[in-house]
Amino acid sequence: MQNPSQVLYAAGSLVLEDKPIPTLSPRDVLVRIAYVGVCGSDVHFWRHGGIGAKVDPTRGLVMGHEATGTIHSIGPDVSLVSLGDRVAIEPGVPCRHCTPCKAGTYNLCKAMRFAAAPGPPGSDGSLDVHGTLCKYFRVAEDFVYRIPDAVSLQEAVLVEPVSVAVHAVKLVDVRPGETVVVMGSGTIGLLCGAVARVFGAQRVVLVDVLERKLEFARGWLGCETWMPDLSATPEVNAEKMLETLGVDGVDAVIEASGAASSVETGIHVLRPGGKYVQTGMGKRKIEFPIATMSEKELMVRGCFRYGAGDYELAVSLLTKKLIDVKPLINSVSAFEDTVAAWEKTARGDGIKNLIRGVEE
Amino acid sequence: MQNPSQVLYAAGSLVLEDKPIPTLSPRDVLVRIAYVGVCGSDVHFWRHGGIGAKVDPTRGLVMGHEATGTIHSIGPDVSLVSLGDRVAIEPGVPCRHCTPCKAGTYNLCKAMRFAAAPGPPGSDGSLDVHGTLCKYFRVAEDFVYRIPDAVSLQEAVLVEPVSVAVHAVKLVDVRPGETVVVMGSGTIGLLCGAVARVFGAQRVVLVDVLERKLEFARGWLGCETWMPDLSATPEVNAEKMLETLGVDGVDAVIEASGAASSVETGIHVLRPGGKYVQTGMGKRKIEFPIATMSEKELMVRGCFRYGAGDYELAVSLLTKKLIDVKPLINSVSAFEDTVAAWEKTARGDGIKNLIRGVEE
Amino acid sequence: MQNPSQVLYAAGSLVLEDKPIPTLSPRDVLVRIAYVGVCGSDVHFWRHGGIGAKVDPTRGLVMGHEATGTIHSIGPDVSLVSLGDRVAIEPGVPCRHCTPCKAGTYNLCKAMRFAAAPGPPGSDGSLDVHGTLCKYFRVAEDFVYRIPDAVSLQEAVLVEPVSVAVHAVKLVDVRPGETVVVMGSGTIGLLCGAVARVFGAQRVVLVDVLERKLEFARGWLGCETWMPDLSATPEVNAEKMLETLGVDGVDAVIEASGAASSVETGIHVLRPGGKYVQTGMGKRKIEFPIATMSEKELMVRGCFRYGAGDYELAVSLLTKKLIDVKPLINSVSAFEDTVAAWEKTARGDGIKNLIRGVEE
Amino acid sequence: MQNPSQVLYAAGSLVLEDKPIPTLSPRDVLVRIAYVGVCGSDVHFWRHGGIGAKVDPTRGLVMGHEATGTIHSIGPDVSLVSLGDRVAIEPGVPCRHCTPCKAGTYNLCKAMRFAAAPGPPGSDGSLDVHGTLCKYFRVAEDFVYRIPDAVSLQEAVLVEPVSVAVHAVKLVDVRPGETVVVMGSGTIGLLCGAVARVFGAQRVVLVDVLERKLEFARGWLGCETWMPDLSATPEVNAEKMLETLGVDGVDAVIEASGAASSVETGIHVLRPGGKYVQTGMGKRKIEFPIATMSEKELMVRGCFRYGAGDYELAVSLLTKKLIDVKPLINSVSAFEDTVAAWEKTARGDGIKNLIRGVEE
Repeated sequence: MQNPSQVLYAAGSLVLEDKPIPTLSPRDVLVRIAYVGVCGSDVHFWRHGGIGAKVDPTRGLVMGHEATGTIHSIGPDVSLVSLGDRVAIEPGVPCRHCTPCKAGTYNLCKAMRFAAAPGPPGSDGSLDVHGTLCKYFRVAEDFVYRIPDAVSLQEAVLVEPVSVAVHAVKLVDVRPGETVVVMGSGTIGLLCGAVARVFGAQRVVLVDVLERKLEFARGWLGCETWMPDLSATPEVNAEKMLETLGVDGVDAVIEASGAASSVETGIHVLRPGGKYVQTGMGKRKIEFPIATMSEKELMVRGCFRYGAGDYELAVSLLTKKLIDVKPLINSVSAFEDTVAAWEKTARGDGIKNLIRGVEE
Repeated sequence: MQNPSQVLYAAGSLVLEDKPIPTLSPRDVLVRIAYVGVCGSDVHFWRHGGIGAKVDPTRGLVMGHEATGTIHSIGPDVSLVSLGDRVAIEPGVPCRHCTPCKAGTYNLCKAMRFAAAPGPPGSDGSLDVHGTLCKYFRVAEDFVYRIPDAVSLQEAVLVEPVSVAVHAVKLVDVRPGETVVVMGSGTIGLLCGAVARVFGAQRVVLVDVLERKLEFARGWLGCETWMPDLSATPEVNAEKMLETLGVDGVDAVIEASGAASSVETGIHVLRPGGKYVQTGMGKRKIEFPIATMSEKELMVRGCFRYGAGDYELAVSLLTKKLIDVKPLINSVSAFEDTVAAWEKTARGDGIKNLIRGVEE
Repeated sequence: MQNPSQVLYAAGSLVLEDKPIPTLSPRDVLVRIAYVGVCGSDVHFWRHGGIGAKVDPTRGLVMGHEATGTIHSIGPDVSLVSLGDRVAIEPGVPCRHCTPCKAGTYNLCKAMRFAAAPGPPGSDGSLDVHGTLCKYFRVAEDFVYRIPDAVSLQEAVLVEPVSVAVHAVKLVDVRPGETVVVMGSGTIGLLCGAVARVFGAQRVVLVDVLERKLEFARGWLGCETWMPDLSATPEVNAEKMLETLGVDGVDAVIEASGAASSVETGIHVLRPGGKYVQTGMGKRKIEFPIATMSEKELMVRGCFRYGAGDYELAVSLLTKKLIDVKPLINSVSAFEDTVAAWEKTARGDGIKNLIRGVEE
Repeated sequence: MQNPSQVLYAAGSLVLEDKPIPTLSPRDVLVRIAYVGVCGSDVHFWRHGGIGAKVDPTRGLVMGHEATGTIHSIGPDVSLVSLGDRVAIEPGVPCRHCTPCKAGTYNLCKAMRFAAAPGPPGSDGSLDVHGTLCKYFRVAEDFVYRIPDAVSLQEAVLVEPVSVAVHAVKLVDVRPGETVVVMGSGTIGLLCGAVARVFGAQRVVLVDVLERKLEFARGWLGCETWMPDLSATPEVNAEKMLETLGVDGVDAVIEASGAASSVETGIHVLRPGGKYVQTGMGKRKIEFPIATMSEKELMVRGCFRYGAGDYELAVSLLTKKLIDVKPLINSVSAFEDTVAAWEKTARGDGIKNLIRGVEE
């Protein structure tokens, strides 16, 4: 096969098949994929055939969007990277021409295409974007980021979720000395805690309903943890958390669980003037304590993927060992065992499961 | 009487009685009250005996917090104003020592006392703060603002609600060229629209369910208006509004109605990266489209009263005739007819009803 | 001739010659030039053969960078404009791939190419960018801006200098209610004053050493003006200006003259915490009162051209008649009389002299 | 003696004499002084009798402004600290009523009084503020900061210069991942480097002309260092520094030397869009490369003392051992040996010399 690829046709239907090697525009590079991380969204596609928009069952879609590899070939105008460079891939393709792109917020580009995302329902396939679970992946030269020798290509797969965390922590504007509460201690919650510390947070508190996750958080991050009482109201949980922390209110909340009760608790633990960012995705609509937001004059932010400078900072945090992602890697499956890797993540085995690229 | 004052003892029970003239600290001034505006909260106190905390029925509380007057006497260290100065009164008393006070956000001071606000339930009266419906009102010299001759003391009563609008427009960070939607065209909604224009908004759209209020808005402000279809969902209303406006999304929304459906519609009309501020107060909890906030990476802000610089700017807008508040004044009642003035506001007569200070 | 163009070969040597019609990339448009404005930099090129880098005397360079016209043809992927659209042209070509470009500051792109700018000394011509004094000019579809019918293509030439002013006023962060001093009342100074007012400046003060320019400023802008005493020190001039204005210090200074004494006076009139932006270009190094900057904790900013959103806002200000540029237009010369137009500007005739595009 | 105090009457004339114990306002506390740090400004007063304004030779002035101690007595309304609390003292007294005070910038208060600062020339003594080189020092309860047991009162003296560094690093807005150059490696330079690291700076480069200071910086801070060539121009030095660092430009420069050549070099090493803050004080006017500031659109800031939140953060950095100030303490002299301590600092002995408070 030229370009073996893992193609999803529907929920539960994945086919390893050949795809053409993409042709390069002048500033594109072709990456020989080394590792691909499994994300919760992969599992969702695997189980449901899509998230919102579904994969077209006649065309299929190559999965995968957290990936590393080496530069295999380059377009004629490429100057930022060279053949053989080890890189992490940013999986988005902004238009570069619209107002958000030019204003420094390309993650808000309406024409943004994203790896392993099907086009809108009814579209003809031209808007499908294939993912990174393949041998050769094409990407613009400024959307790959060189990885220094000290960081392995396995670790570098984590640059993607670290970038998610970097973006969230920037948006919630964590400042040195602050106390930051992270609701939810999954991959993104853990990484948000770690990034908040890099931004100078004095106290980081991870919140979850599973003691084993909090134990991991304490061990990996050395942070404080707190477990809510699921039978109590968010107000009561907030009060208890503040009592435990010994403060009147916290400076920032990063909501990384998506649970409605967690959103509420997060709003209630903030000090007047506090800051909140929503990274977790749950129900589209929830009960929200809007009067509390008003009285405390809170800043509440949505958060969508990552943008300018986020990948660069994520790479630098791994390079400087400010975040040690090795303990987050649970397993490395062969390319052929993609489904097995997805199932591991589905079962909650470890934080991050990897899939090795195609062997020669 | 030394200091005739309108004292509320309970819902429906207002007594005109004498109170001592307050003694002044070195930087305090005593204001001879000229006019007091009627606010929706006055009506709420009149009908329900309080908002949250109720007036103590044995002690009573002097009502009123939007007021103007002249400087009657001053403490020994006063240097910012002089006897006879015509002033607008900012009715809050921050502690000046806490972190929010020193950080430029005294409106978030936990020890803030506010005119015509009872102390917390069960308190002994030392935390009650009497209001401005009296002859002589004491206030710190830096919480009165000189009014130039060109602005009448009747108009200057509006400095208080204009400051509310200034604060909201600052928080939602309206920038020149932007399209701003204001949900609700009561006093605060109208003034937010007017202030947004001063901040450079290119298009201002007032939204309300009453055609007569939209008509007033068009006449007074020269703005665009839009009326939602109460039988449609917020998503559908948002779509229709954008279609009418001919844009994909608006830059900023100022929610000044407090209605839950209006909050939702507001979130749905924003462009990616758009900004939202909540000034209206309704239910404590509402259904909130949090996934939309995330996907569009919105900034959503609570908003509480006014703070540093807001009164100064409000005075300057009236001085420069950038906002003409005269058409907003509906009536001027005598001090003895306070209840009649409240009832006018309760009935929705005009935008702002005034009460004249005690006659000599 | 296919594409008649005004080519400068050296100081004083301009040749009207034919150039090929540029070929379009997929997202490029070809503009049939209607009007080109004369800028001080054109005059400098005409007199000195360049600014810093000189025009290569063997290759020559088409002059002109402030221009309007109509869309004559479009590349296959163009979707933002249509044939026949009347447009203003933004004359820069950023790389769209570097960190500044993606971070929202494409004006700081190191690879930026600019109309009518020669490549660096010793370069082979591939980095020369020809200007707009031609019949057909090629530009990316997102660097032209549709002009509504209510704005003439003559007026729209001013979109370029208005964008310079918009950028400066944004950088100095003028806020409603502020007092803004503009040092220098040439084209950019006048427009900065006008834009500052749109941003809500309460008082705008234009400063110049020529009474006729101040008179024009008062008439056109309705602003305050002040003339420094050239025999006095900057400190003394600053003191006198503040005395005249009746304030202790001003909120913002926009330096648009480039004169060293003016820079100093500007620093001295600012209040503690005041803001300063340098738009004028004079000597590379000047005497600077750095201790005053420290003691007053001033923010001082450099300012380079214009960036994301500036052209859009400039167009909107003309459209809404918030700035009336008609009185700034002094003359319209024929294409063949380019030199005569330059000489008018060199002599200081009026604010803006225009050159008509090639007649059919 | 009731309150033994070190009173300076003129250059070289220090007298140990008794002063009355200050009386307390309701929210004041009286601190029993434990340690006082020696600052370059003390040395300047000792040598020249003042900085700008001189000490009145008939009244004298108690010296000292970096101090720690324990709470000896409190006013009736004090609630933030208790008797016996170990505290660091912030030596400024803002008015709390002016616009800068209420806007969160009390360091810019025009009425600010500062410990060990004489009133303006010709004033009658009522504006002199005595310093901390005494037994009992009065200060508002919110201008002392509790020191946890883990931090000694000797170390806590450094909270003052750390606050200076915190303020500077905030103003220059150091962000995680950035490269920060600090010009000058005296006390403030070293501490700015340390604080920049806490703010997430990836690379910190200390610059000085003395190898022994750079050696100390490398040992204490583990930073990079660079020594300029005093015979080369600032442009050449900047080029060489960038070559050594292997970058095109740095993100932020903190100028902490005050030397004119250092200011210039700092401007030249910045990347387009870079940020600069001036903390060092040298000549009042210097040659400044203003065209470079314009072309690179730099942000240049003055910096004056410290303000809201700076002391709190400085205390937290010492508490969390994020900055280890112990190695900066060179000596501890007895109260009677104040002059000897000053002379040590004058000679450049170590980073910080302390004076012990009066013994019982």
